[in-house]
Amino acid sequence: MKKDIVLTGDRPTGPLHLGHYVGSLVSRVEMQQKYDQFVMLADVQALTDNYENPQKVRENVGEVVLDYLAVGIDPQKTTIFIQSLVPQLFELTVYYLNLVTLNRALRNPTVKTEIKQKNMEENVSLGFVSYPVSQAADITAFKGTLVPVGQDQLPMIEQTNEIVRTFNRLYQTDVLVEAKAVLTKAQRLPGIDGAAKMGKSLGNAIYLCDSSKQLSEKVMRMYTDPGHVHVADPGKVEGNIVFAYLDIFDPEKEKVEELKAHYRRGGLGDVVLKKRLIEVLEAFLAPIRQRRAEFAGDRAQVMRIALEGSKKAEAIAANTLAQVRAVMKLDYIK
Amino acid sequence: MKKDIVLTGDRPTGPLHLGHYVGSLVSRVEMQQKYDQFVMLADVQALTDNYENPQKVRENVGEVVLDYLAVGIDPQKTTIFIQSLVPQLFELTVYYLNLVTLNRALRNPTVKTEIKQKNMEENVSLGFVSYPVSQAADITAFKGTLVPVGQDQLPMIEQTNEIVRTFNRLYQTDVLVEAKAVLTKAQRLPGIDGAAKMGKSLGNAIYLCDSSKQLSEKVMRMYTDPGHVHVADPGKVEGNIVFAYLDIFDPEKEKVEELKAHYRRGGLGDVVLKKRLIEVLEAFLAPIRQRRAEFAGDRAQVMRIALEGSKKAEAIAANTLAQVRAVMKLDYIK
Repeated sequence: MKKDIVLTGDRPTGPLHLGHYVGSLVSRVEMQQKYDQFVMLADVQALTDNYENPQKVRENVGEVVLDYLAVGIDPQKTTIFIQSLVPQLFELTVYYLNLVTLNRALRNPTVKTEIKQKNMEENVSLGFVSYPVSQAADITAFKGTLVPVGQDQLPMIEQTNEIVRTFNRLYQTDVLVEAKAVLTKAQRLPGIDGAAKMGKSLGNAIYLCDSSKQLSEKVMRMYTDPGHVHVADPGKVEGNIVFAYLDIFDPEKEKVEELKAHYRRGGLGDVVLKKRLIEVLEAFLAPIRQRRAEFAGDRAQVMRIALEGSKKAEAIAANTLAQVRAVMKLDYIK
Repeated sequence: MKKDIVLTGDRPTGPLHLGHYVGSLVSRVEMQQKYDQFVMLADVQALTDNYENPQKVRENVGEVVLDYLAVGIDPQKTTIFIQSLVPQLFELTVYYLNLVTLNRALRNPTVKTEIKQKNMEENVSLGFVSYPVSQAADITAFKGTLVPVGQDQLPMIEQTNEIVRTFNRLYQTDVLVEAKAVLTKAQRLPGIDGAAKMGKSLGNAIYLCDSSKQLSEKVMRMYTDPGHVHVADPGKVEGNIVFAYLDIFDPEKEKVEELKAHYRRGGLGDVVLKKRLIEVLEAFLAPIRQRRAEFAGDRAQVMRIALEGSKKAEAIAANTLAQVRAVMKLDYIK
């Protein structure tokens, strides 16, 4: 049986944080053992709302590749590539634009929500409205069959599969392949400020590249229980971010339960609790930091890995595109 | 001083007719003497509203190249190329989509009119709405400075120049070049049925590839003056299509005036008049048919001309794209 093909990636607009780790990186490290995995640095997609600041995107491409390598994404098993270095994706995007009505594009719930959130109503660009079509190009170019997504991104996979079905029906072919969404089962990691989501733009993230000093400062600022004023006071565990992190990162589950009980009945200070979390996160980050140190010395080599991956990705996308062009009668050169 | 660069072309959805000759082909033959001229077979653009029938587009690519060669477009002086064989155009299109708001795209008068004419309101595709952006890619890829257009296409050049200015301002560059519209001064050729415009889809066209038999049949069917029943009756010259054609194609202007006077006072039959037009058009088509015959024997050679032109076009577009990518900080590979 043919291996499933996984297509996933990130917009390189900032370094990756613990939320990324829990939400996607850890499962990529697992999936590369079983599947043919492609991880894309979506620089073109990042430009759809950062076109005024391309330098930011550029700088973060190298950072994110380094993050990938640090967490154990293995370029021998996973093809790490840069979106803009696979020109076939642009061409597929333009062909697919004919297969999606403007009305359909504007009905996409994810796009609708983002337009509202970002207050873009009046100024939304053609590029932004079209980005689900561009994602369809990314997925189908590699004949991706599994696409890890959060619940909010399900409409993207739907849009991709609609394009696949329309294309295959129109050109009487099975060249394009439908993808299955793999819902990320992971809990969402809250920000250190207690916000539901950790985010680059929210300033509440612990980065995979944070130093011990930065890590310890961030944990010390972490939101706990505002009612827990004196050490002797009983404290709340629910909504206490330190416990939320311990639940996820502390491998000694019994110890976490003991700490919770202690905290609830009083007598456990926030500082002691946070020191435990620092210890846990330091242990968690140790192998990541070690791999980072191995690669960070030679940044050119890090980029070389992405460039080689891009070449490999391009060859595969070129193959799909040749099939697409053939059924569209654009195979002038055979 | 640098030569101006002309960018023009056709959607290959049918063979070219006398209307094309008068409206654009004749001036291309002139312009290739003075300018650097690129003539594009817009297969991708043709697919925006023919994606359900790619075979039609494919077949007409070769036909239109042959028409070009037949009228005297010289591949030594003019770069004849196929749009889809210049992949840089797709990439530029995708980048430019970020620079145009959806509202702006929908305000384009040409697009608005076409959406109405074709009854596309509900079903208009993203590709159709975006096609002026794709045209901007075509023009700017070659740094086109002169673009021959009809009055109704002026908004296209405006859209292109808006993108050029936005891009250059945003990325602090002068990489992209604004284009000037060259309004086609030529009269519009009416259809043989008397309709204001000759058109493939209207079934009222005389094709450059029509045989003598087809030509003569079409002229014999031509709309004259329905009130001119008997030869002896006085006839009307205004709105009489045969005279409209004679005005354009008959080099003997005095003779045309004599015929008009004769027709007006009566005694000149439609058949005699039409025979004169057949004679004139036969003479006009003679060198075109001769060149067609020279090329038509080797259709592979005709396609080779378009493929070689496409290679040349690609090299130029690749150069522009490299400049675009550099200012967008996408120059990972220098």
